[in-house]
Amino acid sequence: MTSALLTDLYQLTMLQGYWHEGMEETAVFELFVRKFPPRRNFLLAAGLEQAIEYLENLAFEQQEIAYLRQTGLFDDRFLDRLAGLTFSGDVDAMPEGTVFFPNEPILRVVAPLPQAQLVETRLINLLQFQTLIASKAARCVLAAPGKNLVDFGLRRAHGSEAGILAARAAYLAGFGGSSNVAAGMKFSIPVFGTMAHSYIMAHDDELAAFRGFALSQPQNVVLLIDTYDTLAAVDKVIALAGELAQRNIPVKAVRIDSGDLATLAKEVRKKLDAAGLRQTGIFASGDLDEYTLQRFNAQNAPIDGFGVGTRLTTSSDAPYLNCAYKLQEYAGIPRRKVSSGKQTWPGRKQIYRRYDEKGVLAGDILTTADDAQEGEPLLRPVMRKGKRLHPPESLETIRRRTAMELECLPADLKELERESTLTVEISTALRELTRQTDLRLGLI
Amino acid sequence: MTSALLTDLYQLTMLQGYWHEGMEETAVFELFVRKFPPRRNFLLAAGLEQAIEYLENLAFEQQEIAYLRQTGLFDDRFLDRLAGLTFSGDVDAMPEGTVFFPNEPILRVVAPLPQAQLVETRLINLLQFQTLIASKAARCVLAAPGKNLVDFGLRRAHGSEAGILAARAAYLAGFGGSSNVAAGMKFSIPVFGTMAHSYIMAHDDELAAFRGFALSQPQNVVLLIDTYDTLAAVDKVIALAGELAQRNIPVKAVRIDSGDLATLAKEVRKKLDAAGLRQTGIFASGDLDEYTLQRFNAQNAPIDGFGVGTRLTTSSDAPYLNCAYKLQEYAGIPRRKVSSGKQTWPGRKQIYRRYDEKGVLAGDILTTADDAQEGEPLLRPVMRKGKRLHPPESLETIRRRTAMELECLPADLKELERESTLTVEISTALRELTRQTDLRLGLI
Repeated sequence: MTSALLTDLYQLTMLQGYWHEGMEETAVFELFVRKFPPRRNFLLAAGLEQAIEYLENLAFEQQEIAYLRQTGLFDDRFLDRLAGLTFSGDVDAMPEGTVFFPNEPILRVVAPLPQAQLVETRLINLLQFQTLIASKAARCVLAAPGKNLVDFGLRRAHGSEAGILAARAAYLAGFGGSSNVAAGMKFSIPVFGTMAHSYIMAHDDELAAFRGFALSQPQNVVLLIDTYDTLAAVDKVIALAGELAQRNIPVKAVRIDSGDLATLAKEVRKKLDAAGLRQTGIFASGDLDEYTLQRFNAQNAPIDGFGVGTRLTTSSDAPYLNCAYKLQEYAGIPRRKVSSGKQTWPGRKQIYRRYDEKGVLAGDILTTADDAQEGEPLLRPVMRKGKRLHPPESLETIRRRTAMELECLPADLKELERESTLTVEISTALRELTRQTDLRLGLI
Repeated sequence: MTSALLTDLYQLTMLQGYWHEGMEETAVFELFVRKFPPRRNFLLAAGLEQAIEYLENLAFEQQEIAYLRQTGLFDDRFLDRLAGLTFSGDVDAMPEGTVFFPNEPILRVVAPLPQAQLVETRLINLLQFQTLIASKAARCVLAAPGKNLVDFGLRRAHGSEAGILAARAAYLAGFGGSSNVAAGMKFSIPVFGTMAHSYIMAHDDELAAFRGFALSQPQNVVLLIDTYDTLAAVDKVIALAGELAQRNIPVKAVRIDSGDLATLAKEVRKKLDAAGLRQTGIFASGDLDEYTLQRFNAQNAPIDGFGVGTRLTTSSDAPYLNCAYKLQEYAGIPRRKVSSGKQTWPGRKQIYRRYDEKGVLAGDILTTADDAQEGEPLLRPVMRKGKRLHPPESLETIRRRTAMELECLPADLKELERESTLTVEISTALRELTRQTDLRLGLI
């Protein structure tokens, strides 16, 4: 997961140029999102822990150097230096789970130019994806208050790492767990799962399938009831529950995976209650996202938990963030990109966040790193001289932070469809630095 | 990349059920796409090689078993058996690069039920993603005839595996290469890359940046010209080309990454030609996909190659396929899922493809595996008793097959926006098997 070759070739050709030209002074890069994707009015920073691990372990293996040699693009002196390269820079970043807005850097790298350049691709790759999924997951959490949400996305995730990191991002955003066993092992995320339709179909009789499953794992009896006829299956569950009660095996829940879930859930609930199975929950899945969850909430659908898969793990309505990692300073001089539509604010920056008297997020100010402002500074030191400053945060700590952050959101930002009224103020100091930079570049 | 824990928990709880009930007879699962995502009229099978590798190497490690033990969900007898589990089944599949349509299985697994069940999640995860990207990449290839397309997607890919497998999928679909160095090493894909804006910005002078880069790698001089003023930068390139000519260093190309690419390219081409730099190509990048490529083609934009990134690697207009891996037969009896909106055709199936007298794809017929039809059968044996039958196909072989497949597409399927008129015929034999299955299930 941490190969130094997880980069674009141009990082390496640029490195050869930088070393050739002796350009190894300190560079400052910042990673930020340029603008919201459609239907987002806040984002949730995530992926920092994996970014730190990547930077701490950055090194080229001998076989990787050998591969680069045979491309014919690099000279031996360059490859020898590359073989000894590690990351010795400083990193400041927003803690994972922090709410943020466009143009606010979530991570700043200060390092010799070649190092700071090389790591661009994988830093974006790691931070973009988890931020994307955590932000989508947070919307699901806001849309389904009090419900247990479980990530079901691995099969439709874009590869294994996406599946594992999406489970992490969803959990830190407030999901209750994941069906992904590898993620459960790697990150100690609670895992959930019971049976698929194939289990029912492999049996010649639905009731026999329910019974067989229940007896094989009496502590985890959740039965999938929509393979043939959902309401008829509930009757079988009720009959079985009677048998199982004699062995003190409870039917924890039933799961519905197709059809009109809200209407079915109400009928299923009624049948279960009438049979005295008030403790048996209803779990639903199937093409869910924050919009369907919100509708179920509005309909008071008696569903206790939801499996959210494909649309979460691909962030299907916004499958990427328009994010960038840009050079803001080199050799002590602020830099700025002015390409059409892609202008950046120059220099090292900091964000200060203000809250109103009720503790609700009132607004941010984006300013230069040396300009003190009122409020809470969001970028905090996380690495110095290539070493992490703090042990990894537990996912539980990040989860609690996220919950607090979501609680402090203004009401309009908690809504799924409303555009945000919150703006990020640009400080006088940052505007002045930009003017000076443009003057130096001959742009004004 | 091949951990056996890359699965949903329910596969393991079902396995415990199957073993508990002694259900280990032969199961047949098929993987297929239920329906096209928006704006697709064909798909390209991809990812089979990774699927075979996964099945060949399937095994639980001791620490994985220990993790499962501490979840408290599994009994010791089950975990002991799991520790010894390997895949011993048969697999038939469409060769990678084959065009296919909804409801056509691209892979069939025939194995003892627990094995065939367990592998569902990762098989979908691997085949869904590469098929998704190869299909998107094929659309780009069709939209930009004769152009060199390069995958630039790693940074916005959903994690590292997505970046690496997307580079593979794009290359097999006809891209010329990738910027992804790790994919270049792993799959011997040609790698491309030169410089980013940061290279220019780190220098105090744009011409000095161009010169420094050119001298550091004289065989790969591609200069990025849109950091400040694109047309002014061309003048600098022309001046530098004069200097470099004395050292016999050619300027291979310039790259434009922002602005109105088609209009800029025409002006840049005019300037380069006027200066005698007819051999210097123009490469473009920036938010590209098949739709922009098609527009440039219609405008005769003088652009020789394109970097296609985010929208390819996330398949942004359709970031997932509605695909499924379904039990079609168990213990010799055909099975069928009839859940609302998710009905499947039962039994082992085969697809026969017919071509017209000009070699153009004329139509497919989906039938039972034992029903011989005219045409070319698309599912072919790839594994028997857990072992692969053939050495891995080279990407070059798959690439040639894909090119042939795209050439044989009917004209309307080559268009980006038209819905396909091609239908998959369901054979009489398959309809009869479905009727018998429904009779057995008491559905009719």
